[in-house]
Order: sequence, then C-alpha cells, then structure tokens
Amino acid sequence: MSKTPFLTKEKAQEIIKEIPTPFHIYDEKGIRANAQAVKDAFSWNKGYREYFAVKATPNPFLIKILREYGCGTDCSSMTELMMSKALGIQGEEIMFSSNDTPAEEFKYADEIGATINLDDFTHIEFLENAIGHIPETISCRFNPGGVYSVSNGIMDNPGDAKYGMTKEQLFEAYKILRDKGAKRFGLHAFLVSNTVTNDYYPTLAKTLFELVVEIKEQLGIEIAFINLSGGVGIPYQPDQEPNNIAVIGEGVHKVFDEILVPAGLGDVAIYTEMGRFMMGPYGALVTTAIHEKHTYKEYIGVDACAVNLMRPAMYGAYHHISVLGKENAPCDHTYDVTGSLCENNDKFAIDRQLPEVEMGDLIYIHDAGAHGFAMGYNYNGKLKSAEVLLKEDGSFEMIRRAEQPKDYFATFDCFDIYNGLVEDNDWK
Amino acid sequence: MSKTPFLTKEKAQEIIKEIPTPFHIYDEKGIRANAQAVKDAFSWNKGYREYFAVKATPNPFLIKILREYGCGTDCSSMTELMMSKALGIQGEEIMFSSNDTPAEEFKYADEIGATINLDDFTHIEFLENAIGHIPETISCRFNPGGVYSVSNGIMDNPGDAKYGMTKEQLFEAYKILRDKGAKRFGLHAFLVSNTVTNDYYPTLAKTLFELVVEIKEQLGIEIAFINLSGGVGIPYQPDQEPNNIAVIGEGVHKVFDEILVPAGLGDVAIYTEMGRFMMGPYGALVTTAIHEKHTYKEYIGVDACAVNLMRPAMYGAYHHISVLGKENAPCDHTYDVTGSLCENNDKFAIDRQLPEVEMGDLIYIHDAGAHGFAMGYNYNGKLKSAEVLLKEDGSFEMIRRAEQPKDYFATFDCFDIYNGLVEDNDWK
Repeated sequence: MSKTPFLTKEKAQEIIKEIPTPFHIYDEKGIRANAQAVKDAFSWNKGYREYFAVKATPNPFLIKILREYGCGTDCSSMTELMMSKALGIQGEEIMFSSNDTPAEEFKYADEIGATINLDDFTHIEFLENAIGHIPETISCRFNPGGVYSVSNGIMDNPGDAKYGMTKEQLFEAYKILRDKGAKRFGLHAFLVSNTVTNDYYPTLAKTLFELVVEIKEQLGIEIAFINLSGGVGIPYQPDQEPNNIAVIGEGVHKVFDEILVPAGLGDVAIYTEMGRFMMGPYGALVTTAIHEKHTYKEYIGVDACAVNLMRPAMYGAYHHISVLGKENAPCDHTYDVTGSLCENNDKFAIDRQLPEVEMGDLIYIHDAGAHGFAMGYNYNGKLKSAEVLLKEDGSFEMIRRAEQPKDYFATFDCFDIYNGLVEDNDWK
Repeated sequence: MSKTPFLTKEKAQEIIKEIPTPFHIYDEKGIRANAQAVKDAFSWNKGYREYFAVKATPNPFLIKILREYGCGTDCSSMTELMMSKALGIQGEEIMFSSNDTPAEEFKYADEIGATINLDDFTHIEFLENAIGHIPETISCRFNPGGVYSVSNGIMDNPGDAKYGMTKEQLFEAYKILRDKGAKRFGLHAFLVSNTVTNDYYPTLAKTLFELVVEIKEQLGIEIAFINLSGGVGIPYQPDQEPNNIAVIGEGVHKVFDEILVPAGLGDVAIYTEMGRFMMGPYGALVTTAIHEKHTYKEYIGVDACAVNLMRPAMYGAYHHISVLGKENAPCDHTYDVTGSLCENNDKFAIDRQLPEVEMGDLIYIHDAGAHGFAMGYNYNGKLKSAEVLLKEDGSFEMIRRAEQPKDYFATFDCFDIYNGLVEDNDWK
C-alpha cells in the first residue's frame, strides 16, 4: 500500500527555484475539502463549531482558510490568543483550553472575550484572583480517571493524565461557578490521542451526554456546550483505514438523539478541537537528498532534520516517505533516512523500503501538516524552515519565511556581542 | 542521597525581582573549577585542547569563560560557527564536527579556518566540490561498528549509529586525502553517550591509539591529533558517583605512554569535545510552583515546561529537584511536577518524593546546564526563558533575554499580518 503526494516533482522543482528545501507545504484544496466535510458532518447540530487547535499548526494563513468554514481557534497560550486576535477572531470563537495556566494568560483570554475552559478545580479561585470575576460563560474539563476504552483495543489512561477534574470536583465546580455568577456552562474532555477509529467521538459523546443529563438532574444546570476536544486521528501508516468524519458525525448525532434530546437538552451545542485531523494529511515536509552513506547500514542524508519534524525523534513516530518522480518505482532499497543533528534519534525513517535514492532527489515526508513545524526546535543551532501554501489553482505562496541567523541570535540583541553575531548574516 | 543547589532561596528571590521565573542559571564558580580540572587532567599532553560542544549550551558568555582555560569550540552548524567567529575564536581553535553536512556549512567552516572533521567517506568528494580544495589539516570520524563495551555493562551500539566511517573507509580516506594535498591528519570517534565511568575515555583512547599505530605502519601517515569527542557524562541521579576527570586524564595518559610513545607517536595531541561534562551540573532551571492539583494523583504545576527543558519529555530523563529553602525538609510528599504544555509527557518528575510544596515555592531543577535551554522549542506557542549567570562574587547578570512574542512571530515579519501579531507586545 502507498500514499500519494499532493505535490508533483515538477511543481516542487518550480517552488525550490524561489524557496530552497527544506520547507513545509500545505495543500489548500485538501484543507478546504476536509473542513467542508467536518462542517457537513456536524451540520445537524445548530450550535456546532470546530475550534482549530492552533498548537498543531500555528500559521495565520492556514487558520484564515479554516475560518471560511466557520472554525474558531482552540488556544493554549498567550501567543496563540494573540494570533487569534490578530486574525479578527474574537469572543466565543476562541476557546482557551489550557492547563497549569499562568495568571496573565487568563487575564488576556478574558480581555479578548475567549471562552475559558478550566482544567482544574483550583483554577476557579486562581481565575477569580487573576481577573477579578468569574466570566458568564465558562467551561470545565472532565477526567473520568482509570482506563478509557473505545473499541478494537483503542484506549488510553486518563487516570495517569494531568488534565481535568474528577467527577466530584466537576459537580462542585459547576455549583461554585453558578454561585459566583456564571450563566452559560460548557463541558470538555480529552481522553484518547490520535484515534484512528470512527467510534471515539461517539463513545466519548455518550459518556459526556450521560454526564450532562446527570448534571441537569442533580444540579439543575443545563450545560450549553459539550466540547469533544481533539483525539480524532489520521492514518500515518499507508495501510490504515482513515477516519470517516461523516460516519463520526452521524455516530455523535445518534447518541445525541438517544440521550440529550429525550432529556430536554436538544439545544446543546457540540464543539470539537481538532488539530491533527484538520491539517495533518494536508501538509508535507519536502527535503533534498544531499548525502548517501554506506557503512554498517545504508543511509540517505537529507537537508531537513528533527528541527523541521520532531515526531520520529520524540515518539518514534512513523511518517510515510515518497521520492518525488519515483512514486511508481519499485521500493527495492532499504535506507535509514537521516537528518544532520548530532542526535542518533534524528532519523526520519529506519530500515525503510524506498526506490533507489539519488543525490538531489526530492524527498516528500507525508502527514507533516500538524505537530510538524509546530514542534520545531533549534537544537544544534539549526534554523527552522519556511512554510508554503499550494493553492487551489496550482500556484504557490510562501506563508512563513525560513529562520535566519538573526532570528536565532535575537535574544542576544540587548548585548554588545549581537553585532558580531549577525555581521555574517549575508552568508546565504 | 541528595544534591545541593548552587543557588540559595535568598539569592533566587533577589534575582526574580529583575528576571521573572522561569530562567536558567549558571554557576560561574563551578564552571571555572571544572574547566581548570579538565585542563589539569590533560596537562601532560602538550597539544591538548578541549573543544566545548557548543550544541550543549550555545551561549557566548559561557563560552567566553571556558576560553580562559584554553577551550576552543566544537561546532555542528552554521550558527555555531558564526558564534565562534563573533567571539574571536578562529583557525584550529574551532572543530567542525558535523554529519549530513550542507555544502554552505563546509564552505563557511573553511573560510574561517575551522578544522573539518569528515563524518563520511563520501564527504571527501563533497567537500572538494563545495570548497574547491582539500584543506591541509583534516580529520576523519571513525565508527568501529558492532557493540562497544566500556565496563560495568556500560556500552552502546556504534553499528546502529549514523556517524563515522568503517575502518576500511577510514584507511582509504587518509590515502586519498594525502594524495589530494592534506598534510596534518586527525582521528575522531564518538562511541558511547553520557558515560558515568572513569573508564570510557581510556578504553576509547586504547582503541584509537592502536588504530593510529596501525595507520602509521600501513600508510606511513602520522596522525597529529586524536579527538576523543564527547561521551563523558554527569550523574543526574543523586546516588551516582561522578566522573573524576583527573583519574580519566591519568587513564588516557597511561595508554598514551603504553601505545603511542613506544610507536614514536609521543607528539600526538589529544582533543576532547565535551559539552555535558563542562556545563551540565553548573546550570539549573529555576521555576515557580503556580498550581497544585489533586485528582487521581497529586500534581504541582510550575511556570516552566518542556520548552525550557525537554530531556524528561523526550528521553524520560531524570533531573533531580530541590525546593529552595526546603533543602533539609523531609521528602514526605509524592508529586508529579508538570509544565503547561498540552502534552502529557510534559512532566519534570513523576511520583517524585519532595518536601511539601506550597504555591510560590521556587523549584530548582538540577543539571540543566547542558542540552537544557539548547533543546528548547516553542510548542504550544510558549516562549523560551532567560539565562542568568551567578558570578563568582555572588552577583548575577542576565546573559540571554527571554523570548518575547515579537520573536515568536518574527518569521511573519514580511507579511501584512505581522503588525497585528505584535501590536499587543506590551502585554507583560
């Protein structure tokens, strides 16, 4: 089985005349089709909104595209809030889902009208101290503890996760928040990461819907929105069956009709906070093969490294690789595909079957659209690369410039040494 | 067993009046004493030089201190070369030990006279194409393959590592390099990482010394310098016995006298490329406890996160933690100490026994002086923190400012959106 790049070798060669490798490229057509599919899948719910998880791909140009499909932003930090504001996103279009939150971030979120999702019971008092009041609209994050099973062995251990409140804390939190003047309440939970199954959201929805009915019965509080958060994954492996968002949406619809509607809660809005599913498959890392090495294994060295895509180094994650122009060639060579860090985990692939790679070949690393550029670091003093949008009409546009040495040295700009550091800035 | 912070609570409180937590702090006194000990340990070798591995702690102020003890720099990238040049380090004081190297980095390294250490046999041709000649002084990196054992079960698998040449390639490389005009040759090998044993360098030295004798006998080439590279580690755990650099230096001296001197190679210079050993124990991450959470476990949330220190998240690495002012209090509480990333691996400690932590307590994370700040990323839009030097006289000095939102958004500075992104830059 294989995966098909959304970029041809010819187009890539056209791009590198202006923007040298490595770079991340995003497929506008794919992003739009998927965003429309998400919108359609939940169109049965009149309050539905997807809050794009900015942390996955913090690029304003991409967020602007998602905005056309009604998406808001799920922010986890000050700069993500600032980016949302700069894009004109405001009020309840912003969800602030953070944990271990600094006071100034609560303050800024409140100032720009973001909906605050409280990770912990103790955050009620902390928030009140930080902003001087409790907002009218407020959300609480739930953690059921223990092990949470979805289907086919897909499960995770929320009980080991640092996020959310216990059920007892959650109920107590809603009471206190109501007493302090909150009027519109939300419920949030993130239980399993990158699920490649259509069952996760419906299973989670059932858990949360039943909880919301219990909250109504016990506290007399009608939850206004239920945030299923993220966790809907993508198939990094070529033989995995991708999620079908229409089936997922229908699955949530079914339990909505079974549980919430009969309880008189048919007006509840469903929110999602997907990042990976919205952007992952529609981004790729394009890099050039610059070295081949024949020692105890066969290595292909490329001009990207873990700085551009850390998932293989940090998680041992699989990312499929195509050699542009050799999509149909037999995969009869076995390579480690390596970056240049002095870190032996800086390998995009280990013992991977690929077509014969020649120096200068363009290597296309799939599914780098989420948690790709976003997790980039500057280890070994390496600079982060540019981001490019492949537009619907086939043209391309740079949507983030590559880092330059002056960026790497910026935090020395208040010292005398700075001039010396940047004087060779024209090396390229 | 415990570890003693080099920073008192009182001094920390003085610092945070000017520089808010989190920040990295470095102990000038410790850095100097250790650098002197390293110099002394190898003073028997007249050509000895430590090339500080810039990647461990790329801060010019710290490198400047090491310079006073004769240290050069071991660089792995363009920006590290640029930092060395800005500090006035030049010529053979710079070692360029890189792998999967881009052509422009070879070019720049050659321009500033750095000694180039070739990672691979194919780099000979690549280098010649890149710079138009073969430098007079050149080094080659060796990888013996297989498993390399030191002592007490300490070993690693060079055969699985992407670095270095096989023995056959190495011999062939020296011949070709000589034919192409090289006159002064070096040999380099990095085989085991973070060894906490006094045996590693002597064991490695024996391997390399015997090889150098063989090279002399077979090729008639006298290797001028042998680079033992890095790998000398530090005890992250409080019950580990630290390396004794004097014993290590003597161990290398002994095999030098046994193998090289009788072979007429008593003039060979010994080089090292230590990073962790030079800086690791003399840096700490100081952070404030801002949240406590009581769910299925007890959590202490701090204002630092994996952005400031990634080793626990990436490697599951242990870093000892002290609570400043409570160094002698009983460790009778069990906590997970967490950062604020939406990443469940963003924990500085799991099930750690600590004194009772109160909100506002200053948490001191030990041994963050190497591969600490250097591995920082901006995931979740978080900003990297400042670096501070605790000087010998007890005063302190900021040696890198903290990142600001304008730094995070810098790669959008050529787009219209930039003004909107930075307009709230005065939020703090």
